[in-house]
Amino acid sequence: MRGLIVGRFQPFHKGHLEAIKFILSECDDLIVIIAASQQSHLPANPFTAGERYDMIHQSLVDELSDITRVIIVPANDIKDNGLWVAHILRLVPKFDIVYSNNPLIRYLFAQGGKETRQTPLFERKEYSAAHIRKLIWEGNDGWKKLVPKSVVKIIEEIDGVKRLQIINATDEHQEKS
Amino acid sequence: MRGLIVGRFQPFHKGHLEAIKFILSECDDLIVIIAASQQSHLPANPFTAGERYDMIHQSLVDELSDITRVIIVPANDIKDNGLWVAHILRLVPKFDIVYSNNPLIRYLFAQGGKETRQTPLFERKEYSAAHIRKLIWEGNDGWKKLVPKSVVKIIEEIDGVKRLQIINATDEHQEKS
Amino acid sequence: MRGLIVGRFQPFHKGHLEAIKFILSECDDLIVIIAASQQSHLPANPFTAGERYDMIHQSLVDELSDITRVIIVPANDIKDNGLWVAHILRLVPKFDIVYSNNPLIRYLFAQGGKETRQTPLFERKEYSAAHIRKLIWEGNDGWKKLVPKSVVKIIEEIDGVKRLQIINATDEHQEKS
Amino acid sequence: MRGLIVGRFQPFHKGHLEAIKFILSECDDLIVIIAASQQSHLPANPFTAGERYDMIHQSLVDELSDITRVIIVPANDIKDNGLWVAHILRLVPKFDIVYSNNPLIRYLFAQGGKETRQTPLFERKEYSAAHIRKLIWEGNDGWKKLVPKSVVKIIEEIDGVKRLQIINATDEHQEKS
Amino acid sequence: MRGLIVGRFQPFHKGHLEAIKFILSECDDLIVIIAASQQSHLPANPFTAGERYDMIHQSLVDELSDITRVIIVPANDIKDNGLWVAHILRLVPKFDIVYSNNPLIRYLFAQGGKETRQTPLFERKEYSAAHIRKLIWEGNDGWKKLVPKSVVKIIEEIDGVKRLQIINATDEHQEKS
Amino acid sequence: MRGLIVGRFQPFHKGHLEAIKFILSECDDLIVIIAASQQSHLPANPFTAGERYDMIHQSLVDELSDITRVIIVPANDIKDNGLWVAHILRLVPKFDIVYSNNPLIRYLFAQGGKETRQTPLFERKEYSAAHIRKLIWEGNDGWKKLVPKSVVKIIEEIDGVKRLQIINATDEHQEKS
Repeated sequence: MRGLIVGRFQPFHKGHLEAIKFILSECDDLIVIIAASQQSHLPANPFTAGERYDMIHQSLVDELSDITRVIIVPANDIKDNGLWVAHILRLVPKFDIVYSNNPLIRYLFAQGGKETRQTPLFERKEYSAAHIRKLIWEGNDGWKKLVPKSVVKIIEEIDGVKRLQIINATDEHQEKS
Repeated sequence: MRGLIVGRFQPFHKGHLEAIKFILSECDDLIVIIAASQQSHLPANPFTAGERYDMIHQSLVDELSDITRVIIVPANDIKDNGLWVAHILRLVPKFDIVYSNNPLIRYLFAQGGKETRQTPLFERKEYSAAHIRKLIWEGNDGWKKLVPKSVVKIIEEIDGVKRLQIINATDEHQEKS
Repeated sequence: MRGLIVGRFQPFHKGHLEAIKFILSECDDLIVIIAASQQSHLPANPFTAGERYDMIHQSLVDELSDITRVIIVPANDIKDNGLWVAHILRLVPKFDIVYSNNPLIRYLFAQGGKETRQTPLFERKEYSAAHIRKLIWEGNDGWKKLVPKSVVKIIEEIDGVKRLQIINATDEHQEKS
Repeated sequence: MRGLIVGRFQPFHKGHLEAIKFILSECDDLIVIIAASQQSHLPANPFTAGERYDMIHQSLVDELSDITRVIIVPANDIKDNGLWVAHILRLVPKFDIVYSNNPLIRYLFAQGGKETRQTPLFERKEYSAAHIRKLIWEGNDGWKKLVPKSVVKIIEEIDGVKRLQIINATDEHQEKS
Repeated sequence: MRGLIVGRFQPFHKGHLEAIKFILSECDDLIVIIAASQQSHLPANPFTAGERYDMIHQSLVDELSDITRVIIVPANDIKDNGLWVAHILRLVPKFDIVYSNNPLIRYLFAQGGKETRQTPLFERKEYSAAHIRKLIWEGNDGWKKLVPKSVVKIIEEIDGVKRLQIINATDEHQEKS
Repeated sequence: MRGLIVGRFQPFHKGHLEAIKFILSECDDLIVIIAASQQSHLPANPFTAGERYDMIHQSLVDELSDITRVIIVPANDIKDNGLWVAHILRLVPKFDIVYSNNPLIRYLFAQGGKETRQTPLFERKEYSAAHIRKLIWEGNDGWKKLVPKSVVKIIEEIDGVKRLQIINATDEHQEKS
C-alpha cells in the first residue's frame, strides 16, 4: 500500500517529518509531492524546488532506516483546481491513499476516486511553515528548533535568512517594478 | 442583431436570467460567455465550466420558448486585458452589441469597435452571485429562491453546498500546501 | 443518455452532419466539442473557433428538428494527452458515451472510465476535411457539394477561399518570419 | 560599460528620467526594461507596453542629446522568480551593471552574477507611479507636473484619465464577471 | 507616418538592411519586430532575442544617419494566429503601415485594419536567412558577405559558427532526450 | 561530487542503466532528470512521467546496492532552450557534472557554467528507445531483452504494447480531430 502527501514545504519542518513517519507506519511506501515547484523568492514561497528537495531528502536520509520507501516528486502548480488531481496522477507512480489535513485536497482527490486520510496533529502552532518563515525574517533563531538539522544546514548554506529578509523588505507592489 | 453578455455565473441566478430575457427583447440572438472557464473549486469560482453550462442551458430550456436564439460559449481567462477582446472575438460567431454593467468590459469592447449597452438593474443586492455563494456556505437555504429551479437541482446533484463549505473552510494560505 | 463527439471541424462537412444524426438516433442529447479552439489561419486549421461554431450551429438549425438536443462547446488544446480527458470532463455537462473513429481518443476516454463507440463510415474519402481544404485552396468548387449549405455561405462570407490560398501560399518556414 | 534598469513605468515619470540620466553619467549605454509587458487595463498597470514604450522613447528623444545610448526592451512577466533573471538575460544585449532600488531585483541579479547598484533618491514621494496614478483617477491635475511633457501628451491622446477612472470604478471582484 | 516590419532575423542580413532603408525612404519612423523572441538554440532559430537585438541595433548605428527613427521590439510568439495581430498592437507604439513579403502577415494585419505593403526583392536567394544559416554550419565563410559587418562581429564573439554546428549535429529526436 | 543525467526514458532501457552505473562509478550521487514530463500518449513519448519514474525507480531498487545515491526528478519541458538550463538548475539539488551524449545539452550546460562529460557507448543500436518503441508496436517481443525486468513488468501491467499500437495506428493529422 502506497500513500501520498502533498506540501509546499516552505520550509520542511519537524511536523512534516512526523507526518511522514506516521504515514510510513500505515503504508509500505510514500510519495511526497513538492507542490508549487515553480515558485520561489516570494514571501510565502521563498525556497526553490531544488532547495526543498534537498531539505526533504537530507532529513529523510538522517531520520529513516530505509529511504527507498519514499519517493519525492516536485510538481508545478497549474492554477486549475479542476485539473489538479489529474496533473498529479500522471506525474507519479501509482498510489492508494492521500494523507492531508487540507479539506480541499481531500475533497479533490476523493472526487478523483482516491481514499483520503488525515494525519494526527503533530502540526502544532509552532510546526507551521508560516510561523517558521516569520521567525526567520525577524532574525529569531527559534526556527532552528522547529526544523530538522539538515534543514538548518541547508538554509544556512544558501544564506536563507538574508533571502527571507530581502523578500520581506521588498514591498509587494514594488516587486520587479 | 446579435447581443453578447459575459459572466462567470458562479452560480447562474435569476438576475442573470432577467438580463438574458431583456437582451432577447432587444436582439434576435444572444451569445452568453462563461468567463474564466478554467477556474473552479475556489471561493469566488466554485463551479466548473461544465456545471455552469448545465445551469444556464437547463434554465433557458425551462424559461425560453426558443432556445435556438441563445449560444453559450465557455471562454478561458487569458490574464491579459489588452488581448481579452480579441480572444473573445475569435472564439464566438459574429455579434453586434455587448451588454454589460461592468464599466471595464464596456470600455474594452468599445475600444475594439463594438457598441455597448447596460442592462436594467434586475441585479438587486440579493441577485448577486457573491451573496448567493455566501448564503450557500453559511447553510442558509435562502439561496434557493434566488436561482432558477434547474440551478437548485444541479447544485444539489453535485452536492454543491458541501463543496462550497469545504472550499471556504480551507484557509487560502493552506491551499494545496 | 448523452453522447459526445470531438472534432476540429476544419471545416464542418456532411460526414460530420451524418455522424451527428446517427448519434442522435442512439442518444437523447449530444455534446459537440470544437477541438483546438485557439488554432486558426494555419494550413490544417484555417478557421477560427467562432467560424466553426457558426458552421455547426447554422447547419444544425437547418437540419435538425430539435436543436436543444445538441450542445456545442469550443475547447482549447492543452498539448498534454495525459490531461486532455480531464480537461474536457470539467468543461462540459455530464455525458455517457464518446463517439469517435479515432483510436487514441477512444483509448484516452476509455482510460477515463467512459464508454466509447465508433460511428458508421459516412466519412468516405470525399467527406474528409483535409480533402475539402485541398479542393478549396486549389480553386475547385467541388467542395461545395461536400459541406452543408450554411457552411458554403459562411465560407463565402468570410472570403474563406482566399484565406486558404494565402495560408497555403505562405511557405511554412516564412511564417511570421 | 552598459547599465540596465527595470521598471513597469506605469506611467514613466520625472523620477525615472532622473535615474536614467544618472546612470548615463556612470555608463556608456543603458538598457531600459519595460517589465510586465503583457499587463494593462489594471489599477496598478493601466497602460499597455506600447504606450509605455512611447512615453519613454518620446521623453528620451526630448531630453537626451544622444538617444542611441539607450535601448528600450519590453519584457513579459513569467511569474517565476527563479527563472526571471535568465529570462531577461536572453532577451537583451549584454550588460554589466543592474541599477535598482528594489532589494529583490538586486538580490536576484547578484545571484545571477551581475554587479548591482542603487540610484540616488530622485524618487521622492511625489515621484512615485502609484501616487501619480492616484492623482490621475482622482481628477487632480497635479500629476502633469510629475511626468515629462511627452507623457502628458500621450496620456491625453489615449484619454488615459478616463481609462484610469473606469478601471478604478470597476470593482475588482466584478472584473470581467 | 510610421511603418512596421516583422522578422525573426536569424540572423539579420543585408536584405533586411535594404528593406529597412527602403521603408525609411517612405516613412518617417519604423518599428522592427523581432518575432519568436523566446526561441533560440534551434536549427531555424539559433540566436537569442538579445543577440538578434544587438545585430540589428549595431548594424543600424553603423548604417543610418539617424537611428532615432527606428524602434526595435522583441515579441514572443503566442502560437495563436487569431490573436497575433492584437498581441503586436498592444506591444508597440502606434504605426500606420505594415511592410511584409509574407502573404499571411499582410492578410492578418489587413484583417486588423492596417494598410500593408511589400518591399522590393532585395531578398535575393543569397539574402535568405535559411541560406546563411546553412553556409554557417557547413563552415563556408560565404555568409560573411551576406550580413552587415556588425553581425559578423557579433556571431564571432558568441562563437556562433560552433553553436550552429552543434545544434545541427544534434539529431532532432535526440534533442534533450 | 554529484552528477546529473537527462533523458526522456521512453522507455528506460539497459543502456540507460549502464550509463547510470558508469556515472555512479565516477560520482558520489546522481540526479536523473525525466525530461518532457508533461508529454505522454504520443508516438515518441508514449509513457507518462509517473510510469517512467516507476520504471527507473524499480530498476534501480533491483540493480543498485544503495539507491539513496540516486535522485529522480521529473521536469516539464518549457520549449525555450534559452531558459532550459535555468529551469533545471532551480528544480533540483546542487550538482557538479552533467553527463550527456547529446551535444546541445552539453553546450547549454557548459554555457551555464557546468562541467560536462560523455558516457561510454553502452547505447548500442539496440539500446535505443526509438528502436525499442518500434519493436513494441510491431509486436516483436525482442524489446523485452533490451530493458530491465521491472520495465517489462510495468509495461505489461499498463498494457503498454496495446497503447503503443493504438498511438501508432492513429494518423497524426487525425489526432484528436
